[in-house]
Amino acid sequence: MQLIPCIIAGGAGTRLWPVSREAMPKPFMRLPDGESLLQKTFNRASQLDGVESVLTVTNRDVYFRTVDDYRLLNKRQRSLEFLLEPFGRNTAPAIAAAALHVQARYGDDAQLLILPADQLITDVAAFETAVQSARKLADQGWLVTFGLVPSRAETGFGYIEKGQALSSEAYQVARFVEKPDAVTAQNYVEGGLHLWNAGMFCMRVDVLLAELESHAPALLAAVRQCLAQCTSKEGRNELQIELDSTSFALAPDISIDYALMERSQKVAVVPCEMGWSDIGSWQAIRELSAADENGNRCNGEVVLHDVTNCYIDSKKRLVGAVGLDNLIIIDTPDALLIADANRSQEVKVIAQELKRQGHPAYLLHNTVTRPWGTYTVLEEGKRFKIKRIVVKPQASLSLQMHHHRSEHWIVVSGMARVTNGEDEFMLDTNESTFIKPGHTHRLVNPGVIDLVMIEVQSGEYLGEDDIVRFTDVYGRVPEAAKI
Amino acid sequence: MQLIPCIIAGGAGTRLWPVSREAMPKPFMRLPDGESLLQKTFNRASQLDGVESVLTVTNRDVYFRTVDDYRLLNKRQRSLEFLLEPFGRNTAPAIAAAALHVQARYGDDAQLLILPADQLITDVAAFETAVQSARKLADQGWLVTFGLVPSRAETGFGYIEKGQALSSEAYQVARFVEKPDAVTAQNYVEGGLHLWNAGMFCMRVDVLLAELESHAPALLAAVRQCLAQCTSKEGRNELQIELDSTSFALAPDISIDYALMERSQKVAVVPCEMGWSDIGSWQAIRELSAADENGNRCNGEVVLHDVTNCYIDSKKRLVGAVGLDNLIIIDTPDALLIADANRSQEVKVIAQELKRQGHPAYLLHNTVTRPWGTYTVLEEGKRFKIKRIVVKPQASLSLQMHHHRSEHWIVVSGMARVTNGEDEFMLDTNESTFIKPGHTHRLVNPGVIDLVMIEVQSGEYLGEDDIVRFTDVYGRVPEAAKI
Repeated sequence: MQLIPCIIAGGAGTRLWPVSREAMPKPFMRLPDGESLLQKTFNRASQLDGVESVLTVTNRDVYFRTVDDYRLLNKRQRSLEFLLEPFGRNTAPAIAAAALHVQARYGDDAQLLILPADQLITDVAAFETAVQSARKLADQGWLVTFGLVPSRAETGFGYIEKGQALSSEAYQVARFVEKPDAVTAQNYVEGGLHLWNAGMFCMRVDVLLAELESHAPALLAAVRQCLAQCTSKEGRNELQIELDSTSFALAPDISIDYALMERSQKVAVVPCEMGWSDIGSWQAIRELSAADENGNRCNGEVVLHDVTNCYIDSKKRLVGAVGLDNLIIIDTPDALLIADANRSQEVKVIAQELKRQGHPAYLLHNTVTRPWGTYTVLEEGKRFKIKRIVVKPQASLSLQMHHHRSEHWIVVSGMARVTNGEDEFMLDTNESTFIKPGHTHRLVNPGVIDLVMIEVQSGEYLGEDDIVRFTDVYGRVPEAAKI
Repeated sequence: MQLIPCIIAGGAGTRLWPVSREAMPKPFMRLPDGESLLQKTFNRASQLDGVESVLTVTNRDVYFRTVDDYRLLNKRQRSLEFLLEPFGRNTAPAIAAAALHVQARYGDDAQLLILPADQLITDVAAFETAVQSARKLADQGWLVTFGLVPSRAETGFGYIEKGQALSSEAYQVARFVEKPDAVTAQNYVEGGLHLWNAGMFCMRVDVLLAELESHAPALLAAVRQCLAQCTSKEGRNELQIELDSTSFALAPDISIDYALMERSQKVAVVPCEMGWSDIGSWQAIRELSAADENGNRCNGEVVLHDVTNCYIDSKKRLVGAVGLDNLIIIDTPDALLIADANRSQEVKVIAQELKRQGHPAYLLHNTVTRPWGTYTVLEEGKRFKIKRIVVKPQASLSLQMHHHRSEHWIVVSGMARVTNGEDEFMLDTNESTFIKPGHTHRLVNPGVIDLVMIEVQSGEYLGEDDIVRFTDVYGRVPEAAKI
């Protein structure tokens, strides 16, 4: 039988602000080794025995970024399948949609392996062994969970209580328990009966769908409707299915644990230890790299004087520090975080406050990803805004027009084909052009390397909403008008 | 008799890194109220009774910045006189030069009031009263020092010991004492005989020169030579005298205390309390503003969660902080300082280490001041560099040429007159032009408001040394080639 890994991506990761933001969620965060959690999850999934396709359920706003992350790694040429949600609806609708899709494409006996995209597993061999155990049980009709042997009395996770042994490596699940208090968590660690619930599952799709039919029929019906009304596109090795937003809105916002796992009698657990971390705070990221002799871990240029046990991440700016201990210092182009390392969980309070204020530093980074590449606001001032625009090979920006601003484009690397009013011409490296207000314009990278361009906007009004968009190869409607 | 205040500017202020740097010394630092220490000193000096001219001894590299700072404030139209040193040589040569200049220009009985530019005095009325007392003594032939009543057992200052009383408000000086240890300093505070030596003096120039002749004849001779060989320029209300570097190098590098005050028998002291601070650390700057209910003082946008007694200065970027107490956080475009507030004196260790490394963050800010205005490097990357250039009204950049780079100029405010190869033309707001490699070019601001321009350089080589300079209205030679 076929094994289809299904990566579930989502979640803002407010405890990892200012690097993780609503428009740059935790799965995309680069770890100190340069890979994102999403890429690591994809690697883990795609190199499992017998895997030919990797399915991903994610939000359509991050589709292009997700594909970009995968393509960089997809050396084994796995087929990439996507179910794109119009908005987040928790895990139950996502997993139900995955099950229906896999059943239709791969048959009743295909196995689904659910993998959250925002977790780190350092012992990949142990992960593969656990998946082998889970597949055997799944084939016998169990909904299999992965239970992590707790390494500390964690109060931030749910737990799975082991029941009757099914084999030397698996147990029936006695019950799921919510996040415990500190005393209970300590008892769990010492008792040996309780395991962390990592949100990873393995099951046959026919079993999963039958159980959903019993325990969550309305949810299943809504998701079935949603897939029936989807829009799909297929290319070589890539399939993209957009879930219909009207019917998806009818699916309840509920987790798979609550909708199904806590209700079903067919749930088993495979205990495992595989160097797992949910990377739930800066403290967890700090532990990924080795400390120097003073207990410090630094990325970037630092000058330290009597500084101990600090984590400093500053890619672009020099950091000088005097007389500090046990702080987390995270520097990004538009925002700086300084926190007591013991309280790194509370960073979410900052993110929540920014969200409440409607502050852009909650939502976006200075660098914004678009289907065609990225742009970075380098500087904004009275009457001007400067962006660095990177356009991927063969990509293009929509034909557009601005009423109030001039745009000056200077190519610093690569080549551009520019439409400016009635003219169309090539712009080579070191050349520039000037778009007057009211002129329609379009930009294409006809080459095979990235086009890097500096755009200087000048004028009385420089809001992103001063745009009239005429055509867009990425299917974005004029209302979603962004550069 | 005429009173000539003489402002002595100098000193890098390494304990105030990253705001104070070698090329942006402490006197130019903006305090929270927006004024620099230099400006505050100028105000204090220029509003004294009977003052018509203010003399300044400073380094020629900071002349234009100093004049800019003064002109903004000089509503009383004081005459501005400058003695420009080719390099720093401590206070004795500077004060000797001031005395010789004032004697030649205002006569033997003119009084010199020496004011260091890097001190803050909050009680200006008390300062003026002290100056009145000092003038009386000076007229009687005393070299008058100002002795600050110590408010704490400070080990970082020198002390003046009071001798015989000369009046109800003045004493002969018994002796000068070097920086004491903590126990001695505590005894000084309790004993009531010792005062802080603030480096402020008042004396008749004939008395000062006679005493220098007795106690430091070689120094006086060298400085006399140096003034004899100076270059001077005089405009309406402004006099600029450049000291000759060859003869200035012969003057010993020595303080006026050591060269003269500790040796002369004619030294008096006026005790005073006038809200004086040497602004010697971030701790001192923190104390200038009022704390909120949590003891925090913040400039800029911050989101704080359980943060107490912190000083946060971040003009451009959002700062999020969690669980901090008693830290100094200073954010600048290219460097960030985080320090335990109790150890803010040790910030100099960071500055010294950067100096040892030859790091640009020791020397310069991203924004560099030039005679014609400023430029700020906004972004540097492979094959491009972006600057914001601000040209003062009527100012111009030298006629120049680059071999390896193109320059794209976009006017975002004001108007420019551009020479580009054979062409000369006006560039209005929102317009741009393009300077090819090898083309001579010049930029003038013909208007009455600042010209603000974005310059995008592109090319294989973007070093500041790729410049051939043909003419320069500010008298800079081609070897000193900077934009």
